[in-house]
Amino acid sequence: MHRCLVANRGEIAVRIIRACRELGIETVAVYAVGDEQSLHVSLADQAVCIGEANALDSYLNQDRIISAAQITESTAIHPGYGFLSESPSFADKVEQNGLYFIGPTKETMELMGDKITARQTVDAAKVPIIPGSKGAVESLSEVETIASDIGYPLVLKAASGGGGKGIRIVKSRDMLEKSFKEAKSEGKKYFDDDRIYVEAFIPVAKHVEVQIVGDGEQNYVHLGERDCSVQRKNQKLIEESPCAALSDKRRQQICNDAVAVARAANYRSAGTIEFLVTADDYYFIEMNARIQVEHTVTEMRTDTDLLQTQLYLMQYNKLPFTQEDIRFSGHVIEARINAENPEQGFQPSPGTVQALHLPQGFNVRVDSLLYQGYTVSPHYDSLVAKVIIKADNRSLAISKLKVTLDEMVIDGFTTTADFLYAVLSYPTYANGNAEDVDIKFLDRHQIIGGRNS
Amino acid sequence: MHRCLVANRGEIAVRIIRACRELGIETVAVYAVGDEQSLHVSLADQAVCIGEANALDSYLNQDRIISAAQITESTAIHPGYGFLSESPSFADKVEQNGLYFIGPTKETMELMGDKITARQTVDAAKVPIIPGSKGAVESLSEVETIASDIGYPLVLKAASGGGGKGIRIVKSRDMLEKSFKEAKSEGKKYFDDDRIYVEAFIPVAKHVEVQIVGDGEQNYVHLGERDCSVQRKNQKLIEESPCAALSDKRRQQICNDAVAVARAANYRSAGTIEFLVTADDYYFIEMNARIQVEHTVTEMRTDTDLLQTQLYLMQYNKLPFTQEDIRFSGHVIEARINAENPEQGFQPSPGTVQALHLPQGFNVRVDSLLYQGYTVSPHYDSLVAKVIIKADNRSLAISKLKVTLDEMVIDGFTTTADFLYAVLSYPTYANGNAEDVDIKFLDRHQIIGGRNS
Repeated sequence: MHRCLVANRGEIAVRIIRACRELGIETVAVYAVGDEQSLHVSLADQAVCIGEANALDSYLNQDRIISAAQITESTAIHPGYGFLSESPSFADKVEQNGLYFIGPTKETMELMGDKITARQTVDAAKVPIIPGSKGAVESLSEVETIASDIGYPLVLKAASGGGGKGIRIVKSRDMLEKSFKEAKSEGKKYFDDDRIYVEAFIPVAKHVEVQIVGDGEQNYVHLGERDCSVQRKNQKLIEESPCAALSDKRRQQICNDAVAVARAANYRSAGTIEFLVTADDYYFIEMNARIQVEHTVTEMRTDTDLLQTQLYLMQYNKLPFTQEDIRFSGHVIEARINAENPEQGFQPSPGTVQALHLPQGFNVRVDSLLYQGYTVSPHYDSLVAKVIIKADNRSLAISKLKVTLDEMVIDGFTTTADFLYAVLSYPTYANGNAEDVDIKFLDRHQIIGGRNS
Repeated sequence: MHRCLVANRGEIAVRIIRACRELGIETVAVYAVGDEQSLHVSLADQAVCIGEANALDSYLNQDRIISAAQITESTAIHPGYGFLSESPSFADKVEQNGLYFIGPTKETMELMGDKITARQTVDAAKVPIIPGSKGAVESLSEVETIASDIGYPLVLKAASGGGGKGIRIVKSRDMLEKSFKEAKSEGKKYFDDDRIYVEAFIPVAKHVEVQIVGDGEQNYVHLGERDCSVQRKNQKLIEESPCAALSDKRRQQICNDAVAVARAANYRSAGTIEFLVTADDYYFIEMNARIQVEHTVTEMRTDTDLLQTQLYLMQYNKLPFTQEDIRFSGHVIEARINAENPEQGFQPSPGTVQALHLPQGFNVRVDSLLYQGYTVSPHYDSLVAKVIIKADNRSLAISKLKVTLDEMVIDGFTTTADFLYAVLSYPTYANGNAEDVDIKFLDRHQIIGGRNS
């Protein structure tokens, strides 16, 4: 029997621990100083303090986490999302120490974490990528040749880039040389990798991603798509499934393409393939080699426990289903409740929960780390609750989510709940206007929070 | 557009209000003195105080509730369960006042509320009833004739009986005369109705009930069965679906028979047909002409919102589905958490919630009236939360429910949660031993509460 160490905190650690316990798998929590009172610590069978609040000293400290696993005789590690979840070196270290890493292999992470090899892998699988260079571009003249094909504006990206670093949008040829040098040097500076590649600039698009699971060998299954276009500074705020803007034919194409990518990457465990979707085309953008925040949306739409699917794969070395077993029903929407103040530029607003009422009911799910009296830490992600609902169709789903948010009480600090209520009420969102609700939707509109209570 | 008055309190009032709000139907709560701080009062659009805490002066006071509906210009009344939900005179009064009664018609209630006409109706529909008299028995000799057919022990029951009144188990012929007189006089005394009928005595059986909905005209649909054998003094404590003891063939027979009963009763709205199930046979026992506490089990197994089905019927005069649309998946179990002390004979233990943590997560549902600081009233039913979970099969469902109960925190008064945890752990329950887990299961075994925490 396995004993699983959860190398994370917050709502995802709670989620993982519940999934393990239901299957009779013992759990070990790790926590930083200041997280002693966290829900994940109290729910686990054991808990080990791994360092100071600063994540580099705790949740990002590979050696301390491996040590905690050894001390507790754990047999597996679940990394959750964020922190070490997409670190090939951590996955490798876990397996080198004889523990099972609940996620893809180091090889998959390396292949898909490098944006150039990811593009090449996806292209070879005949899945559309954004037009641009096949590999790294070595010289300005190489970029110019590509530019004559894809035109301006184009985008220069660092192969190992992330978090907005190492990216330059080049509007015209005269900006090219400067941008090329900047992108290269940022890549070197932040990621120790000065390889650069070129993509056409896609000004507006929807963000659509496909949940996949694979056994790393032969069985690769998609569980449908999620529309995550409602974003603020690349942070998803509302996710839903199905994506109302896709025709059934296109949905099927994108989902099949996601499976092709998973297969090409020999993907093991649960992961996500992200696409940009325009009126006429769609393009692979990246793979998220981990369980995601919004996996919950897919769970409700397919009635499939993704965490337990990961655990099943660990225990039996195969997936518990094939593509034919997956059924879709209803329309699911998730609202991410963050401890942030929308009226002050979404600044984090940690504090202590003075009163708490999380709604419940039929097809209402709230995944949260909160309890009355808990103090939200300023050190980590501001996500405090995910409110997920399912209904028969999109307009009923919006109505149900609004009623659910309206019922929710979190007193003690400001959250994004009222703002999200207003987004759900915004005419183009409510009407499912695919042209307006793209990844720039929240940039274009000044949405002011407010509930009717 | 309708405005719905909810003639109830507690978790079912909360349930009804949520269902209405999600559909954009305005809600009116009624409440007794002392219930001002109740969740249903704060969730409704309006609330009207209808009298003193004693239910006879408030939740059972038909005229005050009708007045509250008139004052608030309500167009419909949902009675919930208990209180006035199965009163034909209330249903009639509601409709006489031009309001829609969310439930069956007065005629159906009268037909199925009278145990003799119910037996006759069911028998005519070719659904098995417990062997006995066709109608009321007028004389001792008539009973003796029947006894020569069905044997002793037999049961004498008052036609309008309920709550254990007007029932006599007759073990042998020499007890017959005394019992006959007693049953008749109790019927007269408690129900103003001295009609008596005879049934064979069924010593042990499982309690299996079938959820049905009907449009009262032609469309009658079952949504599967629930096994509610785990009872204490006729109070259901744990309900599950499917019933593990039924073969698929028998399950289908019982469900089809339930539809036949619904059709014979011209049943409108959601209701339940209850059966006793023995190793070889099954028998209709009664119809519950209302939404039930455990409707939630069926909602999770069929992914169908029964409350909103009732509201849809009200709005569109038809059901939103036919039998072919109903799908079943997984195994669902519900635990009823009561504010009672199992170590003191399940005495009510009302009190104030000092700390509250209701679990959440994938396929976990908790319907509750609780919030931190709320004081449970001593005046009403002791049900404070229903914990309902769904999993792929029965043993996973038991495990998941135990983990969920283990996570739950309700501080401030004693509940039945630990006791229910012990029941779920009891070998014959956990193994699905159909012979042991009948309606006398809890009488036969001394189960002592206790969780592993």
